[in-house]
Amino acid sequence: MKFCSSCGSGITLRIPEGDNRERHVCDECGAIHYQNPKVVTGCLPVYEDRVLLCRRAIAPRSGLWTLPAGFLENGETSSQGAVRETLEEACAKVAVEGLYTLFNLPHISQIYMFYRATLLDLDFRPGVESTDVRLFHEHEVPWQELAFPVVTQTLERYFADRASGLFPVHVGDIHYPPRS
Amino acid sequence: MKFCSSCGSGITLRIPEGDNRERHVCDECGAIHYQNPKVVTGCLPVYEDRVLLCRRAIAPRSGLWTLPAGFLENGETSSQGAVRETLEEACAKVAVEGLYTLFNLPHISQIYMFYRATLLDLDFRPGVESTDVRLFHEHEVPWQELAFPVVTQTLERYFADRASGLFPVHVGDIHYPPRS
Repeated sequence: MKFCSSCGSGITLRIPEGDNRERHVCDECGAIHYQNPKVVTGCLPVYEDRVLLCRRAIAPRSGLWTLPAGFLENGETSSQGAVRETLEEACAKVAVEGLYTLFNLPHISQIYMFYRATLLDLDFRPGVESTDVRLFHEHEVPWQELAFPVVTQTLERYFADRASGLFPVHVGDIHYPPRS
Repeated sequence: MKFCSSCGSGITLRIPEGDNRERHVCDECGAIHYQNPKVVTGCLPVYEDRVLLCRRAIAPRSGLWTLPAGFLENGETSSQGAVRETLEEACAKVAVEGLYTLFNLPHISQIYMFYRATLLDLDFRPGVESTDVRLFHEHEVPWQELAFPVVTQTLERYFADRASGLFPVHVGDIHYPPRS
């Protein structure tokens, strides 16, 4: 950030009065441009005993498999965003069952949220950000070709919880580099 | 947003190629300036059978009571942010027990998260954004003077769950104007 989005003047990185951390502050109009973490929301779509995964057509991790997810948009709830992303990336219609996993990724200032969802029919196909969309039994999941740790951990939790039939919300932090 | 924060040129609100909603796009350098919901994180600090509330010194809802909470910052986890805000607003030290409530507020593009937390000692006092900090038994809670619906609902859930000793994560949407 180099210029003020309100008045177009130059920006200085400094601690505003009454604050305790550096912000992008306009030298001219004084506007403070806060930067905050973004929320990524998605679904774990389930059809009978299979889960739906999308093969990524785009960076990062192009070619690897992921759960449908993307940035939450202004004006929508996190479950609405999860349903929208599932439709966009897999052309798949789902009914949301409930929030399932929430991960903090402080090194990239993101929060990931995945909702358990029931796939409503088998009429799905790749959206523009996917090259393939498939249903996988547990033993078919391409564990070595999953795109993100949040996907791996959500699927691991799901298959473990499925044995009990109880799906509490799981919260975790993912640090990079990993902390032992 | 009127000016590009990257190059200082004028901004147009339009749908970029390959997108499906209006964004702030720079006419000169082509940068797309996405705007996304913000996360507010806070604590429900508990000491024995009392809960800690702060009287707000600032707008909005100045003079009303709230749980300590504020915007999540880049580079921190939501529980770290909750602990930080509790220290800033109530000068109170807590140990986080777990995520407790999560609310979508799509009309203001915010997600609120509250963590259950144990107050570690009675050495608390108002921070700069509070005029008073107090512990309340359930029958003492100033229900008519609470600042936000997310605070009211978190406290209601807590006192109801306390009877069972089980505190699952509660997820809700708060719409304004309210939907019947």
